[in-house]
Formats: sequence, C-alpha cells, structure tokens
Amino acid sequence: MSAAMSEISAAGRLRAALGEAAACRRPVQAIGAVNAMAARVAVEAGFDALWVSGLEVSAAYGLADENLLGSRDLADVVTSLRRVTDLPVIVDVDNAAGTGASAARFGGDLQAAGAAAVCLEDSRYPKCNSFSEHRAQVMAETEAVCEQIKELKAAAPGLLLIARTETLICGGSMDEALARAASYEAAGGDAVLLHSKDTTGDQALEVGRRWSGVPLVTVPTAFPHLDRRLLGEAGFVLAIYANQLTRAALAAMHRAAVGFRATGVFEACQLADVQDLMRVGDPDARACL
Amino acid sequence: MSAAMSEISAAGRLRAALGEAAACRRPVQAIGAVNAMAARVAVEAGFDALWVSGLEVSAAYGLADENLLGSRDLADVVTSLRRVTDLPVIVDVDNAAGTGASAARFGGDLQAAGAAAVCLEDSRYPKCNSFSEHRAQVMAETEAVCEQIKELKAAAPGLLLIARTETLICGGSMDEALARAASYEAAGGDAVLLHSKDTTGDQALEVGRRWSGVPLVTVPTAFPHLDRRLLGEAGFVLAIYANQLTRAALAAMHRAAVGFRATGVFEACQLADVQDLMRVGDPDARACL
Amino acid sequence: MSAAMSEISAAGRLRAALGEAAACRRPVQAIGAVNAMAARVAVEAGFDALWVSGLEVSAAYGLADENLLGSRDLADVVTSLRRVTDLPVIVDVDNAAGTGASAARFGGDLQAAGAAAVCLEDSRYPKCNSFSEHRAQVMAETEAVCEQIKELKAAAPGLLLIARTETLICGGSMDEALARAASYEAAGGDAVLLHSKDTTGDQALEVGRRWSGVPLVTVPTAFPHLDRRLLGEAGFVLAIYANQLTRAALAAMHRAAVGFRATGVFEACQLADVQDLMRVGDPDARACL
Amino acid sequence: MSAAMSEISAAGRLRAALGEAAACRRPVQAIGAVNAMAARVAVEAGFDALWVSGLEVSAAYGLADENLLGSRDLADVVTSLRRVTDLPVIVDVDNAAGTGASAARFGGDLQAAGAAAVCLEDSRYPKCNSFSEHRAQVMAETEAVCEQIKELKAAAPGLLLIARTETLICGGSMDEALARAASYEAAGGDAVLLHSKDTTGDQALEVGRRWSGVPLVTVPTAFPHLDRRLLGEAGFVLAIYANQLTRAALAAMHRAAVGFRATGVFEACQLADVQDLMRVGDPDARACL
Repeated sequence: MSAAMSEISAAGRLRAALGEAAACRRPVQAIGAVNAMAARVAVEAGFDALWVSGLEVSAAYGLADENLLGSRDLADVVTSLRRVTDLPVIVDVDNAAGTGASAARFGGDLQAAGAAAVCLEDSRYPKCNSFSEHRAQVMAETEAVCEQIKELKAAAPGLLLIARTETLICGGSMDEALARAASYEAAGGDAVLLHSKDTTGDQALEVGRRWSGVPLVTVPTAFPHLDRRLLGEAGFVLAIYANQLTRAALAAMHRAAVGFRATGVFEACQLADVQDLMRVGDPDARACL
Repeated sequence: MSAAMSEISAAGRLRAALGEAAACRRPVQAIGAVNAMAARVAVEAGFDALWVSGLEVSAAYGLADENLLGSRDLADVVTSLRRVTDLPVIVDVDNAAGTGASAARFGGDLQAAGAAAVCLEDSRYPKCNSFSEHRAQVMAETEAVCEQIKELKAAAPGLLLIARTETLICGGSMDEALARAASYEAAGGDAVLLHSKDTTGDQALEVGRRWSGVPLVTVPTAFPHLDRRLLGEAGFVLAIYANQLTRAALAAMHRAAVGFRATGVFEACQLADVQDLMRVGDPDARACL
Repeated sequence: MSAAMSEISAAGRLRAALGEAAACRRPVQAIGAVNAMAARVAVEAGFDALWVSGLEVSAAYGLADENLLGSRDLADVVTSLRRVTDLPVIVDVDNAAGTGASAARFGGDLQAAGAAAVCLEDSRYPKCNSFSEHRAQVMAETEAVCEQIKELKAAAPGLLLIARTETLICGGSMDEALARAASYEAAGGDAVLLHSKDTTGDQALEVGRRWSGVPLVTVPTAFPHLDRRLLGEAGFVLAIYANQLTRAALAAMHRAAVGFRATGVFEACQLADVQDLMRVGDPDARACL
Repeated sequence: MSAAMSEISAAGRLRAALGEAAACRRPVQAIGAVNAMAARVAVEAGFDALWVSGLEVSAAYGLADENLLGSRDLADVVTSLRRVTDLPVIVDVDNAAGTGASAARFGGDLQAAGAAAVCLEDSRYPKCNSFSEHRAQVMAETEAVCEQIKELKAAAPGLLLIARTETLICGGSMDEALARAASYEAAGGDAVLLHSKDTTGDQALEVGRRWSGVPLVTVPTAFPHLDRRLLGEAGFVLAIYANQLTRAALAAMHRAAVGFRATGVFEACQLADVQDLMRVGDPDARACL
C-alpha cells in the first residue's frame, strides 16, 4: 500500500464514488470502525468507506461524547485503520472544538494522518450527542460555522468536507436546516448532512426532496428501515452506518463476559478463532489452536 | 476516582488479592480489555483485574503480533482503561523489546500510566505469537532476561512483575521451564507464568504440582476446560483470560457486517443500544433512541 | 526512581515546599521546561520545580497559543520530564478547554501522567495568550470556573490546583481579581495566581499585600526586577519563570542558524558538546567527539 | 499549506533538489529540528530540509539513544514540524528496531505523517550512538538490512530511503563500507550515507572519490571544516547538520539557568522576546511585552 498514493486517491476515490452513486442512485456505504479489527471486518464484508465516529472513539477512550476528543485521539485511529486498508476514511470531528483555529488543527492533523474526508457539525461548543436525552444540543452561529469551514478547508484542502447541521436534532425547522446547509455549501462544504432523529424517516425523505446542491449524506441510525434503494431514490449518495459494528461488539462482549462469570466457560462458538485475531494485523498468520 | 491513590492501591490491591487467592485456592480472574468498552463490560461482569494483551492491542492498531508495539501504544490503552475503572491493570509487554534499556522504558512508562503489573516474557527479540504456526518462537538467554527483570524493577519498583517463560511453548522440557522460572524469581520476579499450549491441560497441572515459589499465574487459552476450581486446586492464584472478549467482539462484528451486506439491515437484537454505548464514557447518559 | 512513590511525593513535596517557603518568605522557584533537555538543565541549575507552559508547548508543537493543546499533548510532556527527574511538575492547562467535563479529562490525564499540580485559569474558551496584543482575553463566568475547579479536583484529587485569574490582564479591578480568587479558593483551589502584565510590579505587590488566603503564586514575566527576596517579602510562595529557558534556546538557535548560513560554520564555542546531548537521556554516556 | 499536495511534493521536491545539487555540485543543506521552534528557525535561516535526529529526539523525550524511540515518537515530531513548514522532512529511524516488520511500521507511520525521506542504518539492534565511547556499535548482517530496505520500501513507496552504513564507525574498511552501500543500493536504497567519525574529513573525501552510484549523503558532525563547496566538490548532494541547533539551545538554556540562579535575573539580551515565541505557532501574533 502506498500511503502517499492512496492518501490522494482515497479522497479522490471517495469523490468518484459519490459521483457514481449519484448517477446510479445507489449510495456509497460507510461503516463506523473504531479500530483496525473493525476495519478488517468492514473490508471483508465489502463496505465502501470507513467512518471514525466521535461516539465510538469516545467510548473506546472511556470519555463522554462531549467534545473531549482531541485531534490526536482521532488521528491515531485513522493511522490504525490505514494500516489494514486503503478504503477512504471519513472522520467525525464533531464541531472541531468550536473555533476556526481548532478546526484548522483538526483538518491539518487528520489530513496528515491520511483521512479522505471530515464531517464538521454546527453544534455549539461543548457539544453533546445528537441522541442525548440528558443534555440538549445547542446550535453555533451560522457565521461561526462558516468561518470554521473556511479555516478547515484552508488548512486541509485535500480533505472532502461534509458539513453537518444539527438543526433538525435541535428542533429547528426544515427551512432553517436547509438554509444552514446552503450557507455551509457557500462557505466551501463539499457535501452536506442534515442530521435527523425522526424514526419514521419522513424527515430524511423530505430532506432528499428539497435539497438541491452539493452531494447529500445521511446517517440513518434512527431510521434503519430506509434501505439502500430507498435512500438512493431519495437522493442520498452516502449512507453512514455510524456505530452498528461497535454496538454488535459491545453486546457480544457483554454476553461473553456475563456468560463466563455464570458458567465458568466461554462458549467457543461465540468466539472468533485466535487465528482470526492474529490475521487482523498479519493476514498470513496461522495459529495452532 | 483518585488516580494517585488508586495507582498505589491498584498494585497493592492486586498483591492482596493474590494472597487471598492463594489462601482460599481460588484464583483472581483477569480479562483482556482492549479499550474502555471492554473494561466497562469486565467491570459489570465482576472480573477482578484487566489484562492488556499484546495480541489484542496489536490487532486494534492493525499490527502483526511481532514486537511492533511500543510502550506508548500500551500506555495509551492503560490510560483509557483507567478512565472507567480502578481495577488493577496487568500489561503484557511481551519481551519489552528485548533489551534492558527498553525494559526500563516499558516499565517506567507503564507505571506512570497507572498499570498495576506487567508480564515480561523470555522470547528472543523479535518475538512471535505463542500460538503461531507460521513462525517459531525462539528463547532469549536466561541471563539477558534476568537483566531485563532487574532493569524493569529498578525503573518501576511500584509494578508487580510477572515473569513469563515460553520454554514449554518452544518445546523445552518442564525441568528447563521450572529452572527458567526459578532464575526469574531470583532476579526479582514477583510471580511466574509458565506458558503452555498443551490443550489437555496436563502440562499446566504439572506446573502447578512442581512449582514452589512466588505466586503462579496461568493463561488458559489452550485449556479452557480447567475451570476456576481446578486451576485453584492446581495452585494458580491468577488466571488471565487473554483475548476472549475481543474474539467475541470480532465474531459479532463479522456477523453484523456480513448480515447487513446480505440483507440491508442490522438485526436490532444483535446490537447494544446507542445508550449503552454512550454510557461507557458517561454512566449517566440517556438516549432518545 | 519510583514513579508510584514519587508521584505521591511530588505533590506532597510541593505542598511541603510551599509551606516552608511561606515560613521563611522565600518562594519556591519553578521554571518552564518544554522537554527533557530543559528539565535536565533545570535540575542541574538547582530549580525546585518544573512548569509545563501552554505557550512553550504550543510553540514546540507548532500551534498558536489559543486552546489548541489537548490533555495528551501536555501529558506527553510530563512523561518526558519525569523520565529525567522527580522534581514536581506543575502543568499550565489554560482554561482546560472551558468545560467541567474537559477539566476532568485534563486533571485525570495529567494526574495519571505524574504531574504534581495544575494551574487552571478563568479565561473564556477559546483563550488567547495573556500578553497578546492581536487578540483580547475574555473572562469566563465565575460560576463556570468554580464548576471546573470542582470537577477537576473530583477527577484528580491528588493534584494541587492553582487557580489563576486573568482579571487584571483583562483590565478588571484589583477588587474584582481578589473576589475571583476568593471564589476559586472556596471552590477548592489549593493556591491562587492573580496574573499581571504590569511591568512596574506594583500590581503584583498590591496583590501580595491584599491577599490573605491559600498560598499565593506569581509568574513575574512582566516584572523580572522583583527578585526572590522581594517576591518573598511580598507574600508569594511560588514564583514561576514560565518561558525563559525556551526563549534563551530560541535566540541561540536563531543565532546559530543565521551564523552558519552566513559563514558556513557553526561556532563550536556556542554549541554544547555532543556528549552533553547524549547525557540528557543517559547520564553515563561518553562521546568520542 | 496543502498537506496532501505538499506530502507528495515534499519527497518530489527533495528528489528534484538532490538532482540539482548534483548538477551544480552544491549540496542540499538539511538541519536537525527537534520541534516546531527549531523548524521555524531553520525556515527563517533558509535551510533546504529538516532532519529528525534520533539523538535529538531521544534527548527531548529523556531517553538514551539506544533504540528506545518508537515510530510514534518520531511521527509526532514530523507532525509538529509540518505544522509550520512544508520543507522536506528526513527522519533518522536508526535501524528501525532491527526487523523487516518493524521497518515496515516505521516506514508506513512516517510516510503517513508526511515525511519525505527516512534514513535507515545497518547497526545491529539494539544500536548505540555512532559517537559513543561507552558502548560499541555492532553491525547487522547485510542480508538482514537489505530485507529491511525492501520491506520499508514496500510499505512506504512514497518515501525516499537513505541507506546508511556504520561500517567506518565500527572500524570496518572502506572497501567493506562501499560494498555495504552497493548492496543497499541494489536492495532499493535511493541514496547512501557512509557515516564517518574521522575528524580530518579524509575518510569522507575518500568516500566521495570512490562511490559511484545513487546520490551520496553526508553528516559532517565530525568534520565541520569541510564546507559546502568542499563537500559539493567531493560529490555529496545532501549535507545533514544533525544536532547543531539543539546543541546551541542546550548550551544557551544552561547559561540562562545557571546565570539566573547566580544573579536572580535572566539577562534580557540573551532571551528571544515573548512575541518571538508566540510567533512560532502563529506568525501574526503580537505581544505587549
């Protein structure tokens, strides 16, 4: 793998894939990968791109999802993922710590680490998780976000920037959300994401109908019944499955741990082989077990 | 949580727990935790200690299990684990890069990061995984290992040092393995581990019968049928379940990813809730999903 | 060196030294050390403590002094310093990224890395340098700072917390500054620092006369003519020389580089020996040059 | 600054510069930069490239120069340097921890961090400093080094690889040194460096006369009287001033610290202004002091 080559081509390939997705109305599928094990799984299952999720990475580091991740925390994950694959890596930088200078640091560090794209959202610093009930997301000023977009692009022109608005999450109107997205496109956003927690999916579909601009991205955590075909017909060119692999891992670890404590044994059929684990970092590995 | 307090008490509590385990012939149970999510699972299931596995961490970073991890790679994991628990953390440093000076760096960095113990093995640099079939482990000279033990203890006197011999893994005799362990105890090892890949468990039981010295540790990956009672009766005071949680996670991620690619949906019953993921780093979190 | 021991004793020794300084009216002298080379210099010159300066560390990383440093950036410096000395390390965390949760992360990470103390200031996120002319510092709300103090202390009870107010820097009155300091003491601050850029030193002396509470700290960058005796008589128990070593290094590197480009040679008398450089990390090293 | 662009062009520009240097017999001048402050100094003085020195970085981290640096330690320095300049960065990886797999990790990590070149030497793991008198460098087998070269190039094809032989340092003959260099060229080395501690410079000049192959590099620490013209006439296309800036910094910090302890004041004329320090990471900064 040529990192210098693939770094260019990762962003380039992602752009090309988005273009093709638009043409055939079939969104690129990115999946959250919190470490190289998840990345290996994603590659083997045939996903098109990887997503470095703020929530997943926060959990892996033992941190609340409240703007506690620094650019190095995220860059280290990108470095790990890129050791096992040259799939494009899209990094969730949340609000990039809320300032123009901090957005520039996130952009520069992540581009240097080999990311293909970042997703910058318009929550006010300090953010909370979009699905939080114990805290409420507050929006940053549109102008401040546009300034962040410009500074991030100036610091990292090789990155594709997905501008994400939390307007709908925060209870704003669709008109407001679309206006935000238009402002971010004007400021330099290469794609937009109007995040939604509407479990019916109607909000997402309306976004698809009403947006006409740079490519449209979705994170269908709250409306998984909208499948690839429906999302594609609705106009989305990139669907990000943000945290499903980690949630599968968390459930499985819990079952295994509780089961062992109850019975004294780990059920072998629930465990990957030692060899599978060895092969994440060394595809040629073979184990005697 | 007081890190300064718990750092002292982590090693101290581990020593106390090992003493109690010896008295009641019921080994302390440590489990591999590759990140804070696994640590949270381990805490909730009631494990006594955490193990930072060279194989698991290598896989998470996308590296082969061949002496590619540096002390910072491991220290970062310790830092993450300690954010969510004050369970004692035992770190697998492999051969600590094979020199006295490198053993001192590993010891110093890991003690500073808040580890309670390290496990140093006598493979020759560069090591391979104990269960490898594609490579063969080679032993370092006894004298060189003893020198490493001394330098590590001098640099990190607060750490409990588990000296691990790969003699049986490499095809050496039980007499040789016991002699190695005795040398390492004499050099300052606080506990010993005579690693075995004998799937019958007979080798492990013989180790238990023949060793009389500092506390005895086991990693029963190859002989899971020896349960807590049997291991305790055999004389082990610490049983390390080195990579089962990660293997459960890997299998589950694979199932989820392949299933999604085939069906277009993630089976909700296989996934932990978003809220569970949020609660790893923030126990008070609640989600609207 | 026992890190577990020295970690406790670093904070403990710092407290003891501050008590003694108060008794004999002779302030403890801390000096900024941006890496282990500076730390070695500080030790050899007989300083009492080390200061990890936000400005110095930002410059070393190539970042503006505007809240761009994360806790890992600072923790890595602490780890380096502690490899060569067990002098107490005091870390300038600026406003700790401005939230209670972020203050907890800074505190936890830095305590885990072995810091003895942190200095938390009441600038509003994002901060700028106290001596900036191109930007203006803005104050955070008193209540928010008190919340940060409480969360940091809860996360890192082993750290001595120096609460720093930028009131005088921002043009506030002495009464306001003293009221801020009193609030921070009430919230749990172990010492206070009323920062001043008054080059006459009169402001600093007035602080000394009017404050009666927890130990008083000063950073006399702007009033270097107030020497140890004068600062001690004024009531300060800790004087922090925040960036002088790095400024000496910067000037010397500039002279050496420009001189070489002009003449084609580095003046040997301006350079430390290769052996001196080798001895930073290995006191026993000897060089053939 | 476009990292994706400059990453490519850094290696490309370095190659171009070496070609031009060969044509006009005027070597490219690289200077050791241990952090972004040194990099800023190097840029302002007009150097052509930066060198990340194993000795300098070890000292900054408080480590002996004995294979204790990991790839992350070095990659972090590259990241810092690249924040303030797009000069090509050449990284001293020592023997890259002595194995093919470790060479691949160093190459991959450093290419990802944006390095333009690495310098890989043929010391046996664990190495010591080339100018050590307290330890003796031992050579690795030629074949093993060639294998490392191949694995590093495969993992990081975008990097220019300088193969360095310690033959002359270890007392080997010129014939042996030249044979080693030829083997390394055959294995894929893009340039060679036959390191010498001969203070007369005769050995270096002989290297220049006898080598005919890929571009020739020199580190004239031991023979500073060979100036740019003489080195160019001798056939060198790249001269690396490995640690002079740091040695200037170390001497200056020592003078400042000892002077302060003796007199109670830092001599202002010996210190860079606070503003100079602020401008390392923010060229637009202005200070009120």
